Amino acid sequence: MNELELIRHLTQSLPRNDAVVTGPGDDCAVLDLGVPGQLVLFKTDAAVEGIHFMRETPPEKVGHKALARCLSDVAAMAGTPTAAVVTIGLPKGFEPSFVSALYDGMNSLARRHGVAIVGGETTTCPDRMFLSIAMLGSVAKGKCIHRSGSLAGDAIYVTGELGGSLAGRHLDFEPRLAEARWLAEHFGIHAMIDISDGLAGDLRHLLDAAKAGAELLQTAIPISRVAKLQAKAESSARPPLLAALTDGEDFELLFTVAARDAVPLADAWRKQFPDVKLSCIGKITAEPGLRLRDKDRVMPFTGHGYVHFA
Amino acid sequence: MNELELIRHLTQSLPRNDAVVTGPGDDCAVLDLGVPGQLVLFKTDAAVEGIHFMRETPPEKVGHKALARCLSDVAAMAGTPTAAVVTIGLPKGFEPSFVSALYDGMNSLARRHGVAIVGGETTTCPDRMFLSIAMLGSVAKGKCIHRSGSLAGDAIYVTGELGGSLAGRHLDFEPRLAEARWLAEHFGIHAMIDISDGLAGDLRHLLDAAKAGAELLQTAIPISRVAKLQAKAESSARPPLLAALTDGEDFELLFTVAARDAVPLADAWRKQFPDVKLSCIGKITAEPGLRLRDKDRVMPFTGHGYVHFA
Repeated sequence: MNELELIRHLTQSLPRNDAVVTGPGDDCAVLDLGVPGQLVLFKTDAAVEGIHFMRETPPEKVGHKALARCLSDVAAMAGTPTAAVVTIGLPKGFEPSFVSALYDGMNSLARRHGVAIVGGETTTCPDRMFLSIAMLGSVAKGKCIHRSGSLAGDAIYVTGELGGSLAGRHLDFEPRLAEARWLAEHFGIHAMIDISDGLAGDLRHLLDAAKAGAELLQTAIPISRVAKLQAKAESSARPPLLAALTDGEDFELLFTVAARDAVPLADAWRKQFPDVKLSCIGKITAEPGLRLRDKDRVMPFTGHGYVHFA
Repeated sequence: MNELELIRHLTQSLPRNDAVVTGPGDDCAVLDLGVPGQLVLFKTDAAVEGIHFMRETPPEKVGHKALARCLSDVAAMAGTPTAAVVTIGLPKGFEPSFVSALYDGMNSLARRHGVAIVGGETTTCPDRMFLSIAMLGSVAKGKCIHRSGSLAGDAIYVTGELGGSLAGRHLDFEPRLAEARWLAEHFGIHAMIDISDGLAGDLRHLLDAAKAGAELLQTAIPISRVAKLQAKAESSARPPLLAALTDGEDFELLFTVAARDAVPLADAWRKQFPDVKLSCIGKITAEPGLRLRDKDRVMPFTGHGYVHFA
C-alpha cells in the first residue's frame, strides 16, 4: 500500500452518520446539526515547528498563521467562522511569555473575525512545538461552495498575487472571509478552494472534483512583486511564473464561475474590494489536464514543474 | 509569570462571542449554535508518543485511546458525540499499514458510539508521532452536567475501579457515554467530570468549581485489582489506596448528587448497569479541602501525596 492508496482506503472506510453532508475531501467537513437554514463547517489544521514555522519565528506570527490557515479553509466554503479550540504541544521548560505572545497573535485575528476561542490544551512535545487548531463555522444552506461544481467554459478567477509567500506573507496574511461570503452572496460561484499547495496544485483539486481540465492564460496569472524580485536577485531562484504556479501558502481564493457572470463579477468586485486584485486567469475545459497558453502555443503543465517542449 | 498565572491570564483574555455558553475550564466547551433544544459540545485532545503512548504500543490501541479520551470528555457533560476530525503528525517514511491500523482502532470505537469521522490531516512531525482529535457532541438544553454545581452534603459517586490503569486499561477503556446520559436523564446530577488526572486531582476540580470541600471514606474507594496486585508484586509500588487516588487515566465518571437521591440512584444503577461498579465514596462539605476518613480519624489529603500525621 503506498500513501495515495492509503488515503483512498482510509477515506472510504471512515464511519459516517446522518449528520454528515460532506465528509473528507473538501476544505471543511459540512454537517447538518439541525440548525434551521444553516450548515455547520468543521475543520482541523496543524502547524509544526520546522515545517510550517521556525523556532525563531515571532510567536505572535506563529499564532496568527495557525489560526489564519483554518479561517482560510472556512473562507473557501464561503462560511463564517464561529469558534476554535487550540492544542499546543510544547517542550518542557517553555517560556510562558512565548505562549502568551502566541495567543496574542491568535486572539487579535480571532477578534477581527468574531471567532471565540473556547478551549485548549497544552501538552508536552519534547523535541518541537506544534499547534493543532479545530474550527467551527456556519454557512446558510444553499450558499456553501464546494471544490466540485466547475463546468466546461467556466471562467477561473484568483484573488491577490501569487508566489514568494514564504518570504513573509504566509505569516501575516488575512484570510479572505469577507470576500468569499460576498462572492457566494452575489454570484453563482461554481467551485472554490483556498490556495495552500500552490495555484497548479489546488486548481488540480478543483479539476479532479469536476472531472474537467483547464487552460490558463500565462500572462494573466498575477505574480507577486516578491516572486519577481526574488527571481532578479538570485540567479538560482525559480522563474516568477513558476513561483506563482507552485510556491504555495498564498491563501488566496481560487474559484470558477459561469462565463456569462465573469464580467459582471469583475466589475462588481472592483467597486466592493478596490484594494484586492482579482484576476481572470483562464477557463475550465472538458478536456482533462492543465494547460498554459502563451502568445504562440499551448503547453501542458504537469506535476509541479514544467514539461519543456521542443 | 509562572505556568498557573499564564493559564489564568490566557483564559481571561480569550475572545468570546454570543455562541459561547461555557468557555474553557470544563470537560468540553458548550456552544449555542441555534439548534432548537440542543447545545453543542466542542473539545480537543492530543496524544503524544512517549507521553500518552509508546512507539511500541499497538497502533489500534493508540487510535482507540486518542478517540476514547475525547469521548470520555463528552460523557462527562452527559452528551452524545457526533463527529470528529483527526490530525496525525507522522515521521517521514512511516508505514502506511501503521496508519491504517491506527484508524482501525479509531473507526471501530467511533462506530460503536455512532460518531462520524469527517476529516483529518496527516502532517510531518519528524521526531515523534502525535494525534490531535477534535470532537463535536450534543446535549439537550438543561441536561448538560458541568464541573460546578456540587453542594455541601452531596454524595460523591465514582464508577468502576481506580488505579493501575497504565498497566493496560488506559489503552482499551470504553468511555462511559451511556452511563453518563442515563444518569443525567434519571437523576439531578449536580456535577460531573471524567477521571483523567486521578481521583484526588479531578475531585479537586469539582471542589474548586463549587468552592467546597470533600470528605472521602477511605474504605469506600474502589481500588482496581491491578493496583492491588502491583502493590503485592513490587515492593517499590505505591500503596493501592494511593494508586487509586492519584494514578490517573482511569477515565471513570466522578459525580455528585443530593444525599436524598443517593440510595435511589444506587438501586436503579444496579438494575441498569449490573456489570459496572458504582461506589459512593464520600460527601461534599462546606469546609474546603480534601480529607480522608478511616476507622479512627480524618486526615487531610493534599497535593498528590499523603500528609502524614503523628
